[in-house]
Amino acid sequence: MEFQSCFPIWDKISEAQQKSILDSLIFRQIKKGTVLYSGKEDCTGLFFIKSGQLRAYILSEEGREITIYRLFDWDICLFSASCILRSIQFDVCIETEKDTELWIIPAKIYRQLMEQSAAAANYTNEIMAARFSEVMWLMEQTMWKSMDKRVAAFLLEEAAIENSNRLNITHETIANHLGTHREVVTRMLRYFQGEGMVKLSRGVTELLDEQKLKQLKNS
Amino acid sequence: MEFQSCFPIWDKISEAQQKSILDSLIFRQIKKGTVLYSGKEDCTGLFFIKSGQLRAYILSEEGREITIYRLFDWDICLFSASCILRSIQFDVCIETEKDTELWIIPAKIYRQLMEQSAAAANYTNEIMAARFSEVMWLMEQTMWKSMDKRVAAFLLEEAAIENSNRLNITHETIANHLGTHREVVTRMLRYFQGEGMVKLSRGVTELLDEQKLKQLKNS
Repeated sequence: MEFQSCFPIWDKISEAQQKSILDSLIFRQIKKGTVLYSGKEDCTGLFFIKSGQLRAYILSEEGREITIYRLFDWDICLFSASCILRSIQFDVCIETEKDTELWIIPAKIYRQLMEQSAAAANYTNEIMAARFSEVMWLMEQTMWKSMDKRVAAFLLEEAAIENSNRLNITHETIANHLGTHREVVTRMLRYFQGEGMVKLSRGVTELLDEQKLKQLKNS
Repeated sequence: MEFQSCFPIWDKISEAQQKSILDSLIFRQIKKGTVLYSGKEDCTGLFFIKSGQLRAYILSEEGREITIYRLFDWDICLFSASCILRSIQFDVCIETEKDTELWIIPAKIYRQLMEQSAAAANYTNEIMAARFSEVMWLMEQTMWKSMDKRVAAFLLEEAAIENSNRLNITHETIANHLGTHREVVTRMLRYFQGEGMVKLSRGVTELLDEQKLKQLKNS
């Protein structure tokens, strides 16, 4: 698979612009668990994910985390180039959740493209609007949904991503995704276990009753 | 004051584009407390605020509210035209908090402009990035900050907007801004009163000790 077929507005930009991108494009293979980006000063560039999985999260002053969205094959990571937008006044961190292959368009080259091409600027708008929508969804979850529903939703999402009901994930990691403390997650999972929804063993959470978890999530 | 001097990219668009905006531009005077927009199906257009004050908020299924940002003189409201971006998958409501005068560019006209002009598309990007930053700030507040600090911050912000330490605001309204219940706000304000930070009377909260409120906010 070539980068050209991955970049949705390839046919809408000029040959000179195409050349400028191909000349500066960087391809990287990155191991799972690598922090790719940890705040604006990096401003690496736009990531185009060929294969793998990233998560974007924010950090509190005390080091607590919450996952704001995840990116998969063919997704584009805009905030790794947040310096191209003056009005972005927040920092996200980005790390690989699986071994990942991606292309990088350097921030400077992408900024030039956006300034010249309405198609590229509007495309950027759509990416940002999509991420904004995910953050608004999360905001609604954290404001209105109780933690039991959020843990149930997270387990179901994770099982769908992994295509397995046996999840190799620690309570600490779940807490970092959801922006809470490990103890809260442990208490919740034990309650789920008592209700027959999951089975817990060292470093593993197995989903036993998806139907019941879905009911809880939607209740 | 003319619309032209209010629209930051006026000099970067063509005469034909300028004419198309002026021909379709709507000027409205709206009373305080009017809901201007209550979800995507409206898609009225971009609001340019000449004078006044708007707030954008989200609603839970149970009717709870939380203010996500406020707009003042010269600000631009993008989400009243959210249909121009396919990827916006959330609904906000917008209401006037003071008597307001504003211009509206119809959504269809603005979409055309964005498609033709990289300057307009990039300008839209910057507006969205600014709102995104406000929502991320709010997310951090709701995730990491306790309610006492959020109430203190809200009172100080409100006093700055009103340029007065005597705030005509009900506990219900404060609760709707912060996404919590009236009882929580009442309990907090009584605690603040006990500490000598505010004085409560019917429909009025008076700030007595700004310094102490600031210390609490930043603690």
